[in-house]
Amino acid sequence: MRLQIERNSDVPMYLQLRDSFREGILSGELPGGTLLPPERKLAEELGVNRSTVVKAYDELKAEGLAEGFVGRGTTVLSQLFPRSGDEPVMPLPWNQLLNEDSASPNGSIIRDMMRDAGGQDRISFAGGIPDASLYPVDAVRTVARTLLSEDPRSLLLPSPVHGQECLRESIARYLLTRHVTVSGSDVFVLAGSQQGLDYAARLLLRPGDTVVVEDPTFFGAIQSFRTAGARVLGVPIDESGIRTDILDVVLQRYRPRLIYTLPTYQNPTGVTTSAERRRELLRLAWKYRVPILEDDPYSDLSYDGTPPPSLFATDPSGHVLSLGSFSKTLFLGTRIGWIVGARRVLDAFCRMKQYTDLHTNTPAQFLLDRFLREGHYAAHLRIVREQYALRRNAMIRALEQFAPPGVNWNAPAGGYYIWSRLPPSVDVSRLAAAAARRGVSYLPGNAFFADGAQGTTHMRLCFAAEPEDRVREGIRRLMEAVGECSRDGRARTLEHAGAANPVV
Amino acid sequence: MRLQIERNSDVPMYLQLRDSFREGILSGELPGGTLLPPERKLAEELGVNRSTVVKAYDELKAEGLAEGFVGRGTTVLSQLFPRSGDEPVMPLPWNQLLNEDSASPNGSIIRDMMRDAGGQDRISFAGGIPDASLYPVDAVRTVARTLLSEDPRSLLLPSPVHGQECLRESIARYLLTRHVTVSGSDVFVLAGSQQGLDYAARLLLRPGDTVVVEDPTFFGAIQSFRTAGARVLGVPIDESGIRTDILDVVLQRYRPRLIYTLPTYQNPTGVTTSAERRRELLRLAWKYRVPILEDDPYSDLSYDGTPPPSLFATDPSGHVLSLGSFSKTLFLGTRIGWIVGARRVLDAFCRMKQYTDLHTNTPAQFLLDRFLREGHYAAHLRIVREQYALRRNAMIRALEQFAPPGVNWNAPAGGYYIWSRLPPSVDVSRLAAAAARRGVSYLPGNAFFADGAQGTTHMRLCFAAEPEDRVREGIRRLMEAVGECSRDGRARTLEHAGAANPVV
Repeated sequence: MRLQIERNSDVPMYLQLRDSFREGILSGELPGGTLLPPERKLAEELGVNRSTVVKAYDELKAEGLAEGFVGRGTTVLSQLFPRSGDEPVMPLPWNQLLNEDSASPNGSIIRDMMRDAGGQDRISFAGGIPDASLYPVDAVRTVARTLLSEDPRSLLLPSPVHGQECLRESIARYLLTRHVTVSGSDVFVLAGSQQGLDYAARLLLRPGDTVVVEDPTFFGAIQSFRTAGARVLGVPIDESGIRTDILDVVLQRYRPRLIYTLPTYQNPTGVTTSAERRRELLRLAWKYRVPILEDDPYSDLSYDGTPPPSLFATDPSGHVLSLGSFSKTLFLGTRIGWIVGARRVLDAFCRMKQYTDLHTNTPAQFLLDRFLREGHYAAHLRIVREQYALRRNAMIRALEQFAPPGVNWNAPAGGYYIWSRLPPSVDVSRLAAAAARRGVSYLPGNAFFADGAQGTTHMRLCFAAEPEDRVREGIRRLMEAVGECSRDGRARTLEHAGAANPVV
Repeated sequence: MRLQIERNSDVPMYLQLRDSFREGILSGELPGGTLLPPERKLAEELGVNRSTVVKAYDELKAEGLAEGFVGRGTTVLSQLFPRSGDEPVMPLPWNQLLNEDSASPNGSIIRDMMRDAGGQDRISFAGGIPDASLYPVDAVRTVARTLLSEDPRSLLLPSPVHGQECLRESIARYLLTRHVTVSGSDVFVLAGSQQGLDYAARLLLRPGDTVVVEDPTFFGAIQSFRTAGARVLGVPIDESGIRTDILDVVLQRYRPRLIYTLPTYQNPTGVTTSAERRRELLRLAWKYRVPILEDDPYSDLSYDGTPPPSLFATDPSGHVLSLGSFSKTLFLGTRIGWIVGARRVLDAFCRMKQYTDLHTNTPAQFLLDRFLREGHYAAHLRIVREQYALRRNAMIRALEQFAPPGVNWNAPAGGYYIWSRLPPSVDVSRLAAAAARRGVSYLPGNAFFADGAQGTTHMRLCFAAEPEDRVREGIRRLMEAVGECSRDGRARTLEHAGAANPVV
């Protein structure tokens, strides 16, 4: 057996020595009864202090791997890990033991996006996160320093399960801008709104239940619902939002337990559900007595006038639960979101949170509260709205200039995304690679459909993460890639290329 | 209809006005077609600017609640919320819609403890959290300020799903003290170890599956397993840990999918599983091919010599998943824990985390990493070990002095808890109230049993949260309460009162 000791390692030498012996013992290389080298002799051989060897042997004895008696040296304990009969211990068949739908096509999208967000030189239209160069770093630093000088101990204490009272009140006050009038006690603080999707799925869906989503919709929601064992049924959306005529039929036939909707500046289409469709959506929820889960993370990012009020605000009957987040307007790293809805549901959220993560990170709650209270959020919104509007305009102009005939897209009034459809002449299976070679990325449309076979000819293009000149350059490169992947050398005009028409 | 405007409110007046009208419209008090008061007239009546009324009406129009044409005033929209037939909209029957086991006896323990932690003057033996007066506030503040000056932007960026690399490496290095030799990539960062219980339950248990726990055990684990639909089977523990002879029978008869164990300074009993029982536990896991989930949050709090190595460290076969946490040694508020285990399992954790909260709070990860790297953790451990050992000793001395005959308790070598058993002559149904009247609290033992009918004569007494003099005074008061609740005026000696004997 070879002993490896590295003198410049961070790991103390006696631990290195112990680990070498442990590996030998556990692997069977040093069977039970083996006499370990005498301490003095080994110390000389290795050129270490004798105490180093003594400590290593003591560790092995403490672990029950060896035994030693004065005058008899140290020996490996026999019957160390008694096997059942003579069988060797086999590793567990984890693949069979884990409850995982490993066939999930969208399984790694978010992780890959997070990785992508690390920031190479690639022009990224793939992400769904704010531009880090616009982060309100100075304001955050000022607020954080103030909190650290005022009462640092309170930042480390556990928070109430439903969130810090001060933050709940700040969020309630902020929600007035969404036409929502609730008190702080109606606000439940989450570690990001994704957690609300998970809780809602676990509390409202059972395996085999059906949930209705917009087709296409946010893939993270599809995954949360599927993880709860639910069947996810997509109802198409058009330029006015979810097709309520189709929804009516689906509600009758499939008796879903939940309707999930992103009514304002939808992900991935950018579409805003019209006032008429909103009323019809509520009417259907009331008629069939189905709860609605509203996801509303983009409404503060309005570029043409004011966004419509939250769906929650227009439902007097308590059918709507409404999720909010600061992750699209401020930054993701602090993981703060919230839900408002019927008290009975928030009580259930409270129990769920106790058994999932106890409470949301305390310092982040105090930071966000102070940030809102001191007006930094409103100030920051003015900056990002202006910037993102310019980027949206730049992307549309670039598409008008560079898109081959047959490529369609829409012009959203807010949010992050332009939704683009490619003509059938484009070989989409080659497109992502062709774009990557040109240093540009996007998300393929099929990730957003309940049925992953749909949407292959669509692209979600996030215009928020790159400055105007890179948006323009990225679209130029991407459209070059589209041209390259056209089956006839360039895209044929198979349909009307209505440049600014909604294509959803 | 009465309009209420409060001039000194934080809510702008136009929003107050809009909300009053909205309520009237939604309640039906202002039916469709109603002409709202002319702007100028209403402004005069209320003594506000005309623009305030104009803005309020604009809001109502934007929400689709009213319409207005020049010269014709503003009217409530008819057919605002078309009802199905003439039925009124009924609130949803949330109680039936929610997947909740509302019969759970332990439902609110954690929330109540968090509330209790707020800190009245009550002497609390009920909690399971560190003493806030010992928080390493100065070191945290110094580290936080350094991070804020160095690179504040990186604190707000999203983290990798499995955690920041630097923290994973720091935890791997720290784990050497637990005899665990892993690399950073074997460490998965969690928002506290409770999240690991939740993920393990969701990934390894299906509804109807059986999970084995120690009887008694941490109630948060029982809840996580029950939330996953599992049947929780308790195997008794004695002063040497889980009764492996009984475990053998249970493994044969019930074919459980998971064994959950707290082998070191157990919660609630303070018991440490002996080396022999640990070997036998591993042997059984190998024989029946059952994964073990080790929960190891207390082992750094050793008061008499070194703790045994983590169970994970002595299992060469990958059957053990091991959860760790800083919440018992440092503070709870940042919510940082971790798990080490088979790569295949960590991959599944990664997917689960994407669909539950994306990643753990970024600033807390950088803070804990730096805190570990700069040696603050080791320094802090020296302080809390010394303090908590004194408190343990004080509690034992006070019990010896004040406990009526028949009251038993043990003397744990580490952790937070003394586990005490009351004689049958004590009316436990009156005890909590009698203790509360004397300003002292504890946790009743039945919260820790899979079968809530067990353990009613036990108390979990946390000695960590109060200084020595209050520990002593609290035990004096508590034992006074025990005396008061004795059916014969004072506790009879029904069994041997072995003062320092384990009673589990």
